[in-house]
Amino acid sequence: MEFSLTTLGTSSASPNPLRHTSCHVVTAREHHFLIDCGEGCQMQLQRASIPFSWIDNIFISHLHGDHLFGIFGLLSTMSMQGRTAPLYIYAPEGFAAILDFFMKQFADGVLFEIVFTPLGMKGKEVILDLRTVEVSAFPLNHRVPTFGFLFREKEPQRNVHKWRVEADDLTLAEIGALKNGQDVMRENGDVLEVGKYTYIPWQPRSLAYCCDTAPFDGLAGWIEGVDLLYHDATYADDKAEMAVKYYHSTGRMAAETALAARAGRLVLGHFSARYRNLDQLLEEARSVFPDTAVANDGQKYEIPLVKLSR
Amino acid sequence: MEFSLTTLGTSSASPNPLRHTSCHVVTAREHHFLIDCGEGCQMQLQRASIPFSWIDNIFISHLHGDHLFGIFGLLSTMSMQGRTAPLYIYAPEGFAAILDFFMKQFADGVLFEIVFTPLGMKGKEVILDLRTVEVSAFPLNHRVPTFGFLFREKEPQRNVHKWRVEADDLTLAEIGALKNGQDVMRENGDVLEVGKYTYIPWQPRSLAYCCDTAPFDGLAGWIEGVDLLYHDATYADDKAEMAVKYYHSTGRMAAETALAARAGRLVLGHFSARYRNLDQLLEEARSVFPDTAVANDGQKYEIPLVKLSR
Repeated sequence: MEFSLTTLGTSSASPNPLRHTSCHVVTAREHHFLIDCGEGCQMQLQRASIPFSWIDNIFISHLHGDHLFGIFGLLSTMSMQGRTAPLYIYAPEGFAAILDFFMKQFADGVLFEIVFTPLGMKGKEVILDLRTVEVSAFPLNHRVPTFGFLFREKEPQRNVHKWRVEADDLTLAEIGALKNGQDVMRENGDVLEVGKYTYIPWQPRSLAYCCDTAPFDGLAGWIEGVDLLYHDATYADDKAEMAVKYYHSTGRMAAETALAARAGRLVLGHFSARYRNLDQLLEEARSVFPDTAVANDGQKYEIPLVKLSR
Repeated sequence: MEFSLTTLGTSSASPNPLRHTSCHVVTAREHHFLIDCGEGCQMQLQRASIPFSWIDNIFISHLHGDHLFGIFGLLSTMSMQGRTAPLYIYAPEGFAAILDFFMKQFADGVLFEIVFTPLGMKGKEVILDLRTVEVSAFPLNHRVPTFGFLFREKEPQRNVHKWRVEADDLTLAEIGALKNGQDVMRENGDVLEVGKYTYIPWQPRSLAYCCDTAPFDGLAGWIEGVDLLYHDATYADDKAEMAVKYYHSTGRMAAETALAARAGRLVLGHFSARYRNLDQLLEEARSVFPDTAVANDGQKYEIPLVKLSR
């Protein structure tokens, strides 16, 4: 029942010995989604004890090398491991040429299907609809076409209040219908209303990935109320003009988006390699949005299950 | 005056958390040569405190991904660091298409020249002739065109025996000519012979890289007398049939080549990820060639300067 973000690569542009380039895993219930695939992704997944076979969906935010140079090695190793399950990759349209290069040069022996879905939306769109989780993508504000991703747990099956079962002597059929969200009309004309007889056992969880991006109107609306927001924070305030120039964000800008989106929690990443110490960047963000953390390689951020009262 | 091999990636095919894919640096006097460029190469160079600007020559043994997937990130970071010095890459002919892909997709802003020299020789050939070091390449025995490299320190300038300077009252011009290896004829007809008046101050050093390869006749001859041999040892004896099948070597096969080549020392690498413990593989190699070591990521093997007697 886990819902979490594991940050495996938190450096921007180039790696340093402590921070790899962009690579993240969202664990959403039974699914493990890989977001971006920077160099070293294979080692980082291994260090986080995430077998490659768990990954069926890869989301590439944009086509800068620091977000994708690790995919060649990952695909090669998946092939050597004898993978046969299809692999779904979602990326900006230009990824077709990159995949084509890999398939021509290095895919000798790849026995699994790679299903590529090009991203080019202008607004927020659902791109993956699974039983327990829904993934949406939306455009960000970067130098090249770039997309953010929103992972939203679907509403769990409703539970019937136990005291109602006894008080109204509910049948199994009635319980089944109520759990599926259907009102029940009894032969005597009594109506058992879903709203009164059932409750959602826990609050569905959500997580958004917004990297690389400069702030822009509309982003907060797309991720409104998200439990955990992972956001570009390439620079501290001292380099705000570089954030603007290169279409990135400062920690403070990320915090302003988190505040506007009424996010539950903010995790900052994609730090410029110039910062060995991120205290200043973090402090600036926290002055706007207190529940902020700086991501480190290998760290996991869980969104706890909030059980709703019966 | 260093002459050394630093092994930065010692795993074959796929990395594991302790071993990266193939990546090595040969430091030969004032030069730092990068041999193979597996994923994670950037981090490994940083961990070894080797600035990217020190590297002017990259040698790619063959075009399997585990020997080159790190080059895209390395070239990108060199570009971001503002490199302007030309970079020389030596690789099998097919590398042209890989470089072309990089230049088309990711080289926006690359301001330095990349000079590619295709390798296709059938015997041993000098491919790089510098003031202090000479690099040769020769074909290996692998599934795809693969090349080994021999780094040979040039003979240092000769020294004149001090006692001769005094005994024969040598002039500066005579000393200069003798140091350059020229016999000197004096006006009185006396001949000052180089062999009698001078000596080589130290034994020129050499290092060979032979990976990936199965054993074959002729290899030992090309690397005859090498001080340090780095050799493919993908398998232990228990998987000798896989070594044959996939054109790799066992530790023992590598040791047999070292013995036949009368190498000074053998360093084994490119280990199959199946081996967590390499004791058996090492023991099998040492039973043939005692001065054998197994390479680890980040380890440096220096060839000491052996001063010759005056």
